[in-house]
Amino acid sequence: MRLSQFHLRTSKETPADAEIVSHRLMLKAGMIRKLAAGIYTWSPLGLRVLRKVERIVREEMNAAGAIELLMPSVQPRELWEETGRWERFGGQLLKIKDRKDAEYAYGPTHEEVITDFARAELASYKQLPVTYYQIQTKFRDEIRPRFGVMRAREFLMKDAYSFHLTDEDLAREYRNMYDTYGRIFTRLGLKFRAVFADTGAIGGSASHEFHVLADSGEDAIAFSSHTEYAANVELAEALAPGERPAATESMRRVETPTQKTCEDVAALLGIDLSRTVKSIALMGVDAENNPQFVLALVRGDHVANEIKLAKLPGLAEYRLANEAEIAEHLGSEPGFLGPVNSARPIQIVADRAVASMADFVVGANEAGYHLAGVNWGRDLPEPVLVADIRNVVEGDASPDGHGTLSIARGIEVGHVFQLGRKYAQAMGCTVLDETGKAATPAMGCYGIGVSRIVAAAIEQNHDASGILWPESMAPWQAMVCVINPKNDAAVAEAAQALYAELSAAGIETALDDRGLRPGAMFADIELIGIPHRIVVSERGLAAGTYEYRHRAAAESENLSRADVVARLGAAKSAILPAA
Amino acid sequence: MRLSQFHLRTSKETPADAEIVSHRLMLKAGMIRKLAAGIYTWSPLGLRVLRKVERIVREEMNAAGAIELLMPSVQPRELWEETGRWERFGGQLLKIKDRKDAEYAYGPTHEEVITDFARAELASYKQLPVTYYQIQTKFRDEIRPRFGVMRAREFLMKDAYSFHLTDEDLAREYRNMYDTYGRIFTRLGLKFRAVFADTGAIGGSASHEFHVLADSGEDAIAFSSHTEYAANVELAEALAPGERPAATESMRRVETPTQKTCEDVAALLGIDLSRTVKSIALMGVDAENNPQFVLALVRGDHVANEIKLAKLPGLAEYRLANEAEIAEHLGSEPGFLGPVNSARPIQIVADRAVASMADFVVGANEAGYHLAGVNWGRDLPEPVLVADIRNVVEGDASPDGHGTLSIARGIEVGHVFQLGRKYAQAMGCTVLDETGKAATPAMGCYGIGVSRIVAAAIEQNHDASGILWPESMAPWQAMVCVINPKNDAAVAEAAQALYAELSAAGIETALDDRGLRPGAMFADIELIGIPHRIVVSERGLAAGTYEYRHRAAAESENLSRADVVARLGAAKSAILPAA
Repeated sequence: MRLSQFHLRTSKETPADAEIVSHRLMLKAGMIRKLAAGIYTWSPLGLRVLRKVERIVREEMNAAGAIELLMPSVQPRELWEETGRWERFGGQLLKIKDRKDAEYAYGPTHEEVITDFARAELASYKQLPVTYYQIQTKFRDEIRPRFGVMRAREFLMKDAYSFHLTDEDLAREYRNMYDTYGRIFTRLGLKFRAVFADTGAIGGSASHEFHVLADSGEDAIAFSSHTEYAANVELAEALAPGERPAATESMRRVETPTQKTCEDVAALLGIDLSRTVKSIALMGVDAENNPQFVLALVRGDHVANEIKLAKLPGLAEYRLANEAEIAEHLGSEPGFLGPVNSARPIQIVADRAVASMADFVVGANEAGYHLAGVNWGRDLPEPVLVADIRNVVEGDASPDGHGTLSIARGIEVGHVFQLGRKYAQAMGCTVLDETGKAATPAMGCYGIGVSRIVAAAIEQNHDASGILWPESMAPWQAMVCVINPKNDAAVAEAAQALYAELSAAGIETALDDRGLRPGAMFADIELIGIPHRIVVSERGLAAGTYEYRHRAAAESENLSRADVVARLGAAKSAILPAA
Repeated sequence: MRLSQFHLRTSKETPADAEIVSHRLMLKAGMIRKLAAGIYTWSPLGLRVLRKVERIVREEMNAAGAIELLMPSVQPRELWEETGRWERFGGQLLKIKDRKDAEYAYGPTHEEVITDFARAELASYKQLPVTYYQIQTKFRDEIRPRFGVMRAREFLMKDAYSFHLTDEDLAREYRNMYDTYGRIFTRLGLKFRAVFADTGAIGGSASHEFHVLADSGEDAIAFSSHTEYAANVELAEALAPGERPAATESMRRVETPTQKTCEDVAALLGIDLSRTVKSIALMGVDAENNPQFVLALVRGDHVANEIKLAKLPGLAEYRLANEAEIAEHLGSEPGFLGPVNSARPIQIVADRAVASMADFVVGANEAGYHLAGVNWGRDLPEPVLVADIRNVVEGDASPDGHGTLSIARGIEVGHVFQLGRKYAQAMGCTVLDETGKAATPAMGCYGIGVSRIVAAAIEQNHDASGILWPESMAPWQAMVCVINPKNDAAVAEAAQALYAELSAAGIETALDDRGLRPGAMFADIELIGIPHRIVVSERGLAAGTYEYRHRAAAESENLSRADVVARLGAAKSAILPAA
């Protein structure tokens, strides 16, 4: 591709309404243009990248035995009524009436349509297992579309659906798709983690999210240093620490006139935050469903986890206690709460880490005072209820028993679900099994946000000058830059020859023959993130060299033409699928 | 692809609601499945064909210098208000309200969106000319969707838009696209014609339609036997025939008691229909805009053309005369009308063919009588107004002066327009020209109905057993059929080896390893239209041969394996693009 024949339109201005770096860079590079809130045109440059992602997804899905089809974007209301999702899906469902007042939705997902297809097309167990997929445009009417294509309303998605006679076979295909997703993100050149996840709105039993790791990610992920274990921080289990040390201090009352947080108390006492215990006053219910005051204890440097708390008996619908309830049960005002010397006998839930502590600091249930050197079994009864009620932190033991946990932020770009028989049952989808009886198939569903991946890749791979595309996602692998093409025929000719040679070698190359000044040309090429830049200049030709620079390298190198070709040949082979 | 791993579901039943052969065959072959009126899922088999079309269109558009982008399907009302088409486009525009009550349309076409893109992205004449295209899903809310994907509501389209500083440059690109379309339909292996066309709803100046020829086509096309001239039958000019022969008969009154049509009169008199003249009574206006009675004359075997009549002075908004008006001006009842002996002096319009006739038959303006042996200048005055007012017929001279016209029926699958400055002007799209002044670019637009082509190809290429795909559109070029694979390991192995060899040679091959009986297997393969079938059987292997049959051939041949490979290699090279 000659850039003079292409539509490339970069911008120096930083767009005012773009909150995240990928949105800013996609606008500056001219990859997308906003048509309406959450609705974007993909420019020729942007589309090149989108198609790369699409192609890798397609190749790996095919290699995994999935079969591509294409379902409509406009779906009749009747199907969504069958699963009860016409109402339940909520405001994200874009509803449409046609000229005859028949109702439709612009598909945000295709469980209903594929199940309708399956109930008509699948008759026998002999047709199972089968996995269908499509790469298709979807619409979700986000309340607050933002972040460009990261949370657009109209977007491109790969969605796959599998059908199985048995749960075991569903689990097998689930693993197949899990592995396929790993290959996809590896080929895309992205750092990612598969994260054990709650199932959310789609419903079903087991699920994993695939996250591209990036500091700007919305989700915090805990992952093992040694294994593939990864989970959302809120879902990862915090294991019990080792044995509780012996008590070495006696309990004493310390004055903490204005110190109402663990941080302030630790600072005042000159001790580590991990020696303090936070007391959180909750209202739950007892076995007879009467209101019950509960004091949850977590270490001062830990964060209580609402999901885990809500799983404990009586706390399914807990709320924070108010000041009157706190005063009634503990006899104190907030800021000085603790499990010792409460006004009434109270129910205590101790985090596993707290149950293993000795010589710790808690509130004294008296304004202006804390207790230090507190020990279980001596200053207060051994805790009856010990549970995991906190978020894991960096350095915790991995819940699978191997290595320790690291925490990173991630952007969800894929999701695999074991749906079970929910949709097939609701829609009366059956096949005849080996004995000739009608059986409801188990289903899996597997999504990848194709357009979102483009933005996520930029969040992970950028610098002050622009995008650093992974080799496999770049609009072109290489850019041959011509200095002063109009006035120097020899340079223009040499650049054209190099461009032709690289292209013939199967390296996707563009020729920047726009005749820009070098500074403006290089700024463009860095902004749009081309991995390999080769400058052809009069001076270089005189010396028989080409100035080569990798986008991520600090310096350029002067290479012979043969070395340029060899260097790019090696880069190209790195992006091909493993045989 | 092994068919046992693919989703193929054919049906023996003929679908009741499918009116045309392509719809019936696509349903029987399991290529599409109806989701709602005019909304179809493309099955894995159907999608393979659709993607072939898409790919050829993309390759040729790229080769022609067009640049691909991707515009959204959901378009804001405001843009459509700018061109006045929010109302004017009519009921086909599927209107949508989002959760915030903002209004959108599901794009039936993208003139507004591309012009909005262009006014933002194009600043200078240096960026022109440029042609953008996309292959994208569209929706037109047809009142009566039918014929399957031939007239679906949701469909796949290639739409391209070009921008130019001058009309001359628009004309150049128009020709480029015209030629590109020719290459596309040639590569698709379809018999087609480019037809000079009226511009219809999109508006603009020059346009051609591309029609796939098929007996079931909605449009009749006249095309030259010697040149690329082609036009809709209603638009093709009927040239003047040669000199008028000398009169040989004298005028006589003949009794035609019940013969009110030219056909009946010719039959009664035992003469050719082409010797009779049809008189059509019209009401137009005179030069002062007063109502004027006009008698239009066309040969008995010709059909009057409303479009051509309406172009004559005073007939722009003509209507047929009623019985009272006919009685007043001609003194007769319908069925016996003619230009001789009218009750009042009348205005006559003679078709060119009629003006060249001698010894002809007309109504006598008297119930139950016609006049025979009528001649111009003797029995009635020479006609003052002679014009082309009929449809051309098979065998007419071609209007371009070369060869004669044939008539065929066609299905419109492509359309190229010179839009001019209409959209750019309405939306304030300008670029700076060489002198630094704002100039409104001229636009062209170029559409191809990608999904419609699939149906049109079937209309053109089918027989009683099913589809006959052109080589380049077939889901697979070749099918290797295994007889009795489960019980005959040697046959299964030989089939697998042949399948692998053909695949390695770049021939898209499938292996029918489903274990069906030969009859059912062959019926499927004929139905889905695979061009090359190779049967591997025990008997064949014993003789060292494979049973080869081309889909269009009456008989199969026994070939050696090397001959099979050579035969298919030749077929493959025929579908590659010309270098």
